[in-house]
Amino acid sequence: MNQTDRHAENAKVLLKDLRGSIDNIDAALVHMLAERFRSTQKVGELKALHGLPPADPEREKTQIKRLRDLARDANLDPDFAEKFLNFIIVEVIRHHDAIAAKAADQS
Amino acid sequence: MNQTDRHAENAKVLLKDLRGSIDNIDAALVHMLAERFRSTQKVGELKALHGLPPADPEREKTQIKRLRDLARDANLDPDFAEKFLNFIIVEVIRHHDAIAAKAADQS
Repeated sequence: MNQTDRHAENAKVLLKDLRGSIDNIDAALVHMLAERFRSTQKVGELKALHGLPPADPEREKTQIKRLRDLARDANLDPDFAEKFLNFIIVEVIRHHDAIAAKAADQS
Repeated sequence: MNQTDRHAENAKVLLKDLRGSIDNIDAALVHMLAERFRSTQKVGELKALHGLPPADPEREKTQIKRLRDLARDANLDPDFAEKFLNFIIVEVIRHHDAIAAKAADQS
């Protein structure tokens, strides 16, 4: 095996190792997201029961500020963290609207 | 305090409790994402060093299938899990392109 082949071989081993970490992290992310939606599902039911609006701009503002700060500390792009939270909130509001619609149907 | 007030008070306590869990989960998500980008950063550097393309459709196909299965087991919408992975991959490819451009500048 010449040096170029050896480098390519090393790169393959390293890539496989990094992908193993990424796959583990992705499994953790999916499970954390599943748990997060369990909580927001309960929030949605509570809001529907008490006729509260699905979105809560004040709460969202606090969450965004907090996540941006956490991201900065963890060396993650704060803009990406904010985009990520918005991406999740869109899904949560979609769930809450569905819960509210179901509650209205049943009342 | 009448019964309606008591119910509203209970709802407030429950909502605060649920939001405490959501905030903890979000902090965990931000830290997992930061760690994920540390790994993909290394993948990007490795790919740039060996002239490999930033995107890898075969790997992505395997990741999507795996995450959809994990999501199903965790009672998370598999379509959402796939959208989530795509959302992250867009960011990763943006990073990889930046690394490749920097490597090309330096060579």
